[in-house]
Amino acid sequence: MPLAPAAPLALTQGDPAGIGPELALLAWLRRSELALPAFVCLADIDHLAKLARRLGLDVPLAACAWEEVSSVFVEAFPVVPLAPGPAVEPGRPDPASAPGTIAAITGAVAAVREKRASAVVTNPIAKSVLYAAGFAHPGHTEFLAHLASDGGETPLPVMMLWCEELAVVPVTIHVPLRRVPELLTTELIVRTGRIVAAGLRRSFGVERPRLALSGLNPHAGESGALGNEDDTVVRPAIEALRAEGIDASGPYPADTMFHARARAGYDCALAMYHDQALIPIKTIAFDEGVNVTLGLPFIRTSPDHGTAFDIAGKGIARPDSLIAALRLAARMAAQEQVVG
Amino acid sequence: MPLAPAAPLALTQGDPAGIGPELALLAWLRRSELALPAFVCLADIDHLAKLARRLGLDVPLAACAWEEVSSVFVEAFPVVPLAPGPAVEPGRPDPASAPGTIAAITGAVAAVREKRASAVVTNPIAKSVLYAAGFAHPGHTEFLAHLASDGGETPLPVMMLWCEELAVVPVTIHVPLRRVPELLTTELIVRTGRIVAAGLRRSFGVERPRLALSGLNPHAGESGALGNEDDTVVRPAIEALRAEGIDASGPYPADTMFHARARAGYDCALAMYHDQALIPIKTIAFDEGVNVTLGLPFIRTSPDHGTAFDIAGKGIARPDSLIAALRLAARMAAQEQVVG
Repeated sequence: MPLAPAAPLALTQGDPAGIGPELALLAWLRRSELALPAFVCLADIDHLAKLARRLGLDVPLAACAWEEVSSVFVEAFPVVPLAPGPAVEPGRPDPASAPGTIAAITGAVAAVREKRASAVVTNPIAKSVLYAAGFAHPGHTEFLAHLASDGGETPLPVMMLWCEELAVVPVTIHVPLRRVPELLTTELIVRTGRIVAAGLRRSFGVERPRLALSGLNPHAGESGALGNEDDTVVRPAIEALRAEGIDASGPYPADTMFHARARAGYDCALAMYHDQALIPIKTIAFDEGVNVTLGLPFIRTSPDHGTAFDIAGKGIARPDSLIAALRLAARMAAQEQVVG
Repeated sequence: MPLAPAAPLALTQGDPAGIGPELALLAWLRRSELALPAFVCLADIDHLAKLARRLGLDVPLAACAWEEVSSVFVEAFPVVPLAPGPAVEPGRPDPASAPGTIAAITGAVAAVREKRASAVVTNPIAKSVLYAAGFAHPGHTEFLAHLASDGGETPLPVMMLWCEELAVVPVTIHVPLRRVPELLTTELIVRTGRIVAAGLRRSFGVERPRLALSGLNPHAGESGALGNEDDTVVRPAIEALRAEGIDASGPYPADTMFHARARAGYDCALAMYHDQALIPIKTIAFDEGVNVTLGLPFIRTSPDHGTAFDIAGKGIARPDSLIAALRLAARMAAQEQVVG
């Protein structure tokens, strides 16, 4: 029997005008076929009901308490109802819905910290919509890190992209390419590598994680001919990680790291910037990629796509990535139970 | 019946201490099984013979003139012999072999320009070895462009990486990542796009080539939030290409351009820098990628790997990429015959 977490997964609704709510409905409909772990959606239940009718989806919704979720899940889609928000049309984001979007996230984090939920799975939000309502965090993940800080030091959240074939972490993320060389420091690589190694041990059951680090430059700098950061910034980080007992290696030329034979040599790749990490995983697994946040005091996964306002409410959004995110969250939670 | 070029392919030996010569032998051995087009190797014939014995390969070598190649090819490996060079051990590059390495290239270019060969296929060379012998060109491709200039204007050679599933061109290539933003200009993108479109029409039989251009920054800059070059440099290049009647589109976020459904939307992707182009193709087709040089007045392909001195002479090098390079060169030559 596969491991199952003791508590249900807490799924946020995401932006109600995006594809998150319909993906949640679609995922629930496939619960038996795919033997999905029990999950509960923190959502505006009226919005969900209207959306189900609009899309012709036969999804009975059940407002319920956390402890009822697992028994309800087989027959109805369990919902932890939020205070009712404004009527929102799919594809038409409305800043008035921001309080509900945020309440879903804070509610899910509270539940996982109180052990009523085993992990947080978040549907996509649109930062611009939240900003218009006064939200002051740079993004979803930073907001989660803030919630995890309890007023103390804010943890460094690390974004890992995961599919069955590849796990990869960008060390710098949403910054212009020209700023990457200045933002990439030995310290940042080391901090990231530590968090990744700890996360793989704790949540993925990899006893001695093998981290493969890319070079920043083409051919990992070719001994300095194509740039020196590979030797001056990346290599010292690898040495520092190794000195801590972490199996880190590289810097490798990024273009030869991601084919099937190369992938067999490591558990997670650390890439130096956004596209170096996201190109390979989206090339291999466009629909099934999962975004995992490591470094938080709880498990968090999310689908690897945005709100997709342009296709919301049309019945064409694919729940593959959300389903993969739910499954991975359950697998991580079960693994952490084993570790104890 | 598949199209076949009228003249044989001219294959250079590459660095004699690298894997090029043994790949040539291995490719010839599979000529019938794979119905390979006739090719002739410009090589030190004694070195080839010694290498065949060392590796236990049953390859009869036949020194021959260009017009004999096609009839010889079935029974023996045709060789246009170079002046004998020094005795070279596999894996031990020797600057004394540089004149032979260079003579193979100049001989192949002369043959293709005189129509005795239909295309040039080059085995890998090691620039450092040639530099030690006084070679003054930045690389293999630049040397070919110089040979093509006839003392006039040197053409801009454009590197395209090709496999059955994807063709991709890096606009900037072997430069440190931090220099990419300054080297990437609208003019360079436009010149590159023109050459790619012309090459696809002439040598690949694509009547109206569709070019998809990536953005430089993550998410193609996200309307300026993650960098402005996508709007100030890339977008004007796309507009200029379109004004010339070339079907160019973008800038697209690079990470979502290379999965199978996205690839169906274009004939060639233009990426803004080395890893953005080479990561996807080497992830998809590590062994079968071909390097094609567009913009020269003749066809040139080469395997998508280096001299691999570390495995030379050991009988473990794989000829897949060289075989793919030979096949593609023949296909391009046959296409150009049709165009006339």
